[in-house]
Amino acid sequence: MTLDVGVLGYRFMGKAHANALARLPMFFPDAPDIERSVLVGRDESALSDAADQLGFDAISTDWEEVIDEVDVFYNLGPNHVHPEPSIAALEAGTAVFCEKPLAPTLDEAEAMADAARDADVPAGCAFNYRFVPAIQYANELLEAGELGEIRHVRGRYLQDWLVDADAPWSWRNDEEMAGSGALGDLGAHTVDLLQFLVGDITRLSGHLRTFVDERPVEGSDETRPVTVDDAYSAQAEFEGGAMGTLEATRYATGHKNDHTIEIEGSDGGLRFSLERLNELEVCLEGNRGYETVLVTDEDDPYLDHWWPPGHVLGWEHTFVHENYEFLSAVEAGGEYEPSFEAGLSAQRVLAAIEDSDERGEWVDLE
Amino acid sequence: MTLDVGVLGYRFMGKAHANALARLPMFFPDAPDIERSVLVGRDESALSDAADQLGFDAISTDWEEVIDEVDVFYNLGPNHVHPEPSIAALEAGTAVFCEKPLAPTLDEAEAMADAARDADVPAGCAFNYRFVPAIQYANELLEAGELGEIRHVRGRYLQDWLVDADAPWSWRNDEEMAGSGALGDLGAHTVDLLQFLVGDITRLSGHLRTFVDERPVEGSDETRPVTVDDAYSAQAEFEGGAMGTLEATRYATGHKNDHTIEIEGSDGGLRFSLERLNELEVCLEGNRGYETVLVTDEDDPYLDHWWPPGHVLGWEHTFVHENYEFLSAVEAGGEYEPSFEAGLSAQRVLAAIEDSDERGEWVDLE
Amino acid sequence: MTLDVGVLGYRFMGKAHANALARLPMFFPDAPDIERSVLVGRDESALSDAADQLGFDAISTDWEEVIDEVDVFYNLGPNHVHPEPSIAALEAGTAVFCEKPLAPTLDEAEAMADAARDADVPAGCAFNYRFVPAIQYANELLEAGELGEIRHVRGRYLQDWLVDADAPWSWRNDEEMAGSGALGDLGAHTVDLLQFLVGDITRLSGHLRTFVDERPVEGSDETRPVTVDDAYSAQAEFEGGAMGTLEATRYATGHKNDHTIEIEGSDGGLRFSLERLNELEVCLEGNRGYETVLVTDEDDPYLDHWWPPGHVLGWEHTFVHENYEFLSAVEAGGEYEPSFEAGLSAQRVLAAIEDSDERGEWVDLE
Amino acid sequence: MTLDVGVLGYRFMGKAHANALARLPMFFPDAPDIERSVLVGRDESALSDAADQLGFDAISTDWEEVIDEVDVFYNLGPNHVHPEPSIAALEAGTAVFCEKPLAPTLDEAEAMADAARDADVPAGCAFNYRFVPAIQYANELLEAGELGEIRHVRGRYLQDWLVDADAPWSWRNDEEMAGSGALGDLGAHTVDLLQFLVGDITRLSGHLRTFVDERPVEGSDETRPVTVDDAYSAQAEFEGGAMGTLEATRYATGHKNDHTIEIEGSDGGLRFSLERLNELEVCLEGNRGYETVLVTDEDDPYLDHWWPPGHVLGWEHTFVHENYEFLSAVEAGGEYEPSFEAGLSAQRVLAAIEDSDERGEWVDLE
Repeated sequence: MTLDVGVLGYRFMGKAHANALARLPMFFPDAPDIERSVLVGRDESALSDAADQLGFDAISTDWEEVIDEVDVFYNLGPNHVHPEPSIAALEAGTAVFCEKPLAPTLDEAEAMADAARDADVPAGCAFNYRFVPAIQYANELLEAGELGEIRHVRGRYLQDWLVDADAPWSWRNDEEMAGSGALGDLGAHTVDLLQFLVGDITRLSGHLRTFVDERPVEGSDETRPVTVDDAYSAQAEFEGGAMGTLEATRYATGHKNDHTIEIEGSDGGLRFSLERLNELEVCLEGNRGYETVLVTDEDDPYLDHWWPPGHVLGWEHTFVHENYEFLSAVEAGGEYEPSFEAGLSAQRVLAAIEDSDERGEWVDLE
Repeated sequence: MTLDVGVLGYRFMGKAHANALARLPMFFPDAPDIERSVLVGRDESALSDAADQLGFDAISTDWEEVIDEVDVFYNLGPNHVHPEPSIAALEAGTAVFCEKPLAPTLDEAEAMADAARDADVPAGCAFNYRFVPAIQYANELLEAGELGEIRHVRGRYLQDWLVDADAPWSWRNDEEMAGSGALGDLGAHTVDLLQFLVGDITRLSGHLRTFVDERPVEGSDETRPVTVDDAYSAQAEFEGGAMGTLEATRYATGHKNDHTIEIEGSDGGLRFSLERLNELEVCLEGNRGYETVLVTDEDDPYLDHWWPPGHVLGWEHTFVHENYEFLSAVEAGGEYEPSFEAGLSAQRVLAAIEDSDERGEWVDLE
Repeated sequence: MTLDVGVLGYRFMGKAHANALARLPMFFPDAPDIERSVLVGRDESALSDAADQLGFDAISTDWEEVIDEVDVFYNLGPNHVHPEPSIAALEAGTAVFCEKPLAPTLDEAEAMADAARDADVPAGCAFNYRFVPAIQYANELLEAGELGEIRHVRGRYLQDWLVDADAPWSWRNDEEMAGSGALGDLGAHTVDLLQFLVGDITRLSGHLRTFVDERPVEGSDETRPVTVDDAYSAQAEFEGGAMGTLEATRYATGHKNDHTIEIEGSDGGLRFSLERLNELEVCLEGNRGYETVLVTDEDDPYLDHWWPPGHVLGWEHTFVHENYEFLSAVEAGGEYEPSFEAGLSAQRVLAAIEDSDERGEWVDLE
Repeated sequence: MTLDVGVLGYRFMGKAHANALARLPMFFPDAPDIERSVLVGRDESALSDAADQLGFDAISTDWEEVIDEVDVFYNLGPNHVHPEPSIAALEAGTAVFCEKPLAPTLDEAEAMADAARDADVPAGCAFNYRFVPAIQYANELLEAGELGEIRHVRGRYLQDWLVDADAPWSWRNDEEMAGSGALGDLGAHTVDLLQFLVGDITRLSGHLRTFVDERPVEGSDETRPVTVDDAYSAQAEFEGGAMGTLEATRYATGHKNDHTIEIEGSDGGLRFSLERLNELEVCLEGNRGYETVLVTDEDDPYLDHWWPPGHVLGWEHTFVHENYEFLSAVEAGGEYEPSFEAGLSAQRVLAAIEDSDERGEWVDLE
């Protein structure tokens, strides 16, 4: 069986997933056979060039046609394009892999999760950082109880591409298209990772900030308003009793893509940073301090598919792993995690952060 | 002129300050002459041994007598002993150096600051971490505007000495004696450092947690209740517009004394960790990433008093520096910072964190 | 024009280069078109499986036939297989890309370089670490003179896969097949990198050691002798006046693939470690210490082909870059560096290290 | 009993030891009582000021008188002043503590060790880095066999205070006064530490370099020749079979006082750097990578004398520890390590490095 894949979106995420699809046969030979069938977008000329480069058989400017023709539909467009095509595809019985955050608003995310619940095919939310080998290894340690009862959780995602007040406006600065700013773009990753590793957030206090109110439009004299947050922070309680702090920003001078997770329990602790994604720092029983583990041994998660110990992986490998898992689930007709349900759960947290920020008080996640 | 110094408290802080006093003549020859005149406590036998070891001329079990006899009164007792003797000493015209946090409660801290305002002598609050050379250097960078407009602030103080639920009870676990737990003990340092470096906190949301409710009394079968917080976190806004997160805990497995400060502005960023206190990481104009500066050059703050470049200082040197500054101010009849006013300002933040935690909402610091 | 590529070797290096070839169209669209035409080996069944997985059109057990049929011949076999097919291919007018070290012996390396000199096609030696973006960036800094006159050079390559005396014997432990041990396998990389960055080694003192004399043959009760070095060290002088130390070992407990380069000049210094290959630490004019540069910006070497800043690359990307450069040179009929000449130059250093070790004295490289 | 101490030298080392003596009573109450009796030098006015500041009772410009009057003689002068007064003091039955390297030449070092052998009092060589708690802890691990059979040793000492070719001439650049340059000043420390931790060096190949031939005399228009090495490197074999590389320089741009030790054995590895002297990185049984141990726990070497865990020590504390050990040995009439014998052993290695450099070949240490 060959799975025909249709992909909406051909920029950053389009390239990341197309690359992942292209690499499966050589490194994950037991993955289902894939045909990069059709690339979907609006600008035919750009689309055609992208299809050439990314190895797609055809292009289409009409996602409605595509969702019927393919076995799997990848929704990699801007956030405001996530809900309608994803729901339609699921209703058409087509498996859907959708980028995060699931939707611009909680209502739309709920509708998407409803559609997923009613469908017989997997609906995955592309939280790729779950598939960093060091994160999978961290999860194994946590599931084995090696950290004991978790007490402290920290997650922060620091970038600096908006530090300059004259950096150009993009759809990521627009509430209608993006839903939110650093919160949805970066915070969604942090929330999902922490809920994956530690458990659901049950209560929180959130805070949003916009530092620069308008930005120049590239190639024009105009400016456009920034209608999303530039940064957020939150305090949280987790089921199981841990307390945590979360934060993300696009204004962290000197930090390019620094997604850091720290977890401390009664028996151990761990730390992870995306800029050194091959490493996990752990302090376990018998340790006096944190040990830097290079998670590249043959029996580390996914590493038997790649290179000998010490030959490090990059950011893009997380996409290969998640595509492998998602497509295997599609082929097997099984479950895939993180599903739309996980995407919705993260979205509820994001919405609660916004709600808490507006009300100036803690809010419960029922 | 020789300043007679009376010191209440002869344990951890007593030793740290006695050592500082003893080291001044060799390393800060322009410091005033000091006589370690009298050591004050309750247990005569322990006191007498301590006076011998710490080099005091005499002992006393009655602080009320001592405050009249000496030129300077050091109040290094548990927090609940801070207010009364400090106020009495100031009223007697004796300069006072008091350990942090200033008092167990905000009311008492206000009374102490009132007394300081009415006195003609310096009243210092012993926030020793201001006197880490790397922190002084950071302050120079900030005052010179090298970081631009500050947007992000992070301060956290991680220790792990209570991770074990069977670690013994101490006065630091008791609300009456300590006022608060990690909040006052560790958070006071963080709040003061951030207010020193960045400016006053104007609004915050705070959160407190106690993980272990009672602890065994050493040498007995009893337990006593833990009536203070084991950990706190906070979100804050600073005058000038920065947003920040703060945190402290005694349950951070693998962290012994990890007081970390991070500040990011429109033009640069910096990071500091107390466990590597000779280093400051900076990202300034022209840098692409963070540069590890060993703050031990001859023209670094206080370093001309010590050793050649690269010969690192320890934790205790911060006490030498603060004692030098405080005693010089006493001798000169001048001002000392951080004063009781700074101690009160930190205390207001601590109280606001507790208040916010109770109310579940943001609170303003007028 | 499409270049037909024949590849001898289908294990570790075969997979690394096949992957590189497969990734060029998507990420380096201006690279020549490539056909993975034929995979060469001895075991037909294993070969056939490998060709399937690695995407080759055909297989062959006779390299002599292949070198005439293809435009480019990749020689990725064990070291003792490097000379004969490489020379034959060059004599047949076929471009050759050969893994390092160039040959088991200096004589053979010289014959290979002779053949390359006589040929009209590029003959490249696959020193992939030159193509780490951070190394290219380091080279730019050095060529711009930002480090001033170079005085100190350190290169060491630490692995630990032979720490266990019971780890199985492999061809890498055999002098006839490998030529040398850590020296040729790891030291060749270090020597080439340092000569690339700093200049030729002119004089050296070398030292070799074998810690474990024989090793068990996997799946049998036998042992076989280890006839190569387990580790080497060297002191060296470079043209231009720098002094250096070099070292490699397979017994460095806790180090998986730690290839570290350090260079210090009159105006600056730099450090690189392969386990964190996206980073370069630099101390340049105006710096007080070393700054950690994440070499992933859009204008960093090769980075415009990949992902946004902070989205790190892995070990395998070095192969994509070198294949891009080599195949572009083949297509253009131009020069490629590192050529067989560079491979020979490194080999001369390796031979001098062995010679010096035997004689117990410094040796000159004419 | 009170030990009268006479100290020759009142600059850097004089201050370091005077400070150590002054701090013993408060932190090592079981140390012998000490009187800082007399400070010895040539310039009476400078000497008098120094005695005041460093707390000495008297001064003398004639060491010959002093060695009879005191119980302990500290020889902290330039290297060329080490032999004669040390030997005379020992012959007078006075215990001697001498700075490293023991002497400018091997002959003189042998004479000093001879005198020590004939004396009934301890003769200590002040290799203070043995007394870093992290080094003592490393030694405990090594003595317990936790690293297994040692295979690799690295020691390097990097400073940068001569990078600038216009940095002023000092006695440290003069062969007659210093004996050697980086070799004796820095290399002596490395050699002693490695021999302390790993065992004696049995064979070596050494290399010396002078980068700048003459330097300006401060406050004049003259220059003076640099007659010592600016840097050295060595390859070595140790008893027990380890191989090692050693290096020191005063030209390592960006390194202030970076004395790094690395040791790898069949069962574990460790790393130490003087700029982070409270830390030891270890990779022991059960570890996958290196663990950063903050060696400040109560049961760590000497730590029960100081502060609670995580309250870091500085460079100067190494002097307190070594003075404590040395003076305790004097009081007890016992042995002290490192003795003059250890100083001589290090000196033999230094001489062998010079010898090897001249001859261009490996030399044996009988």
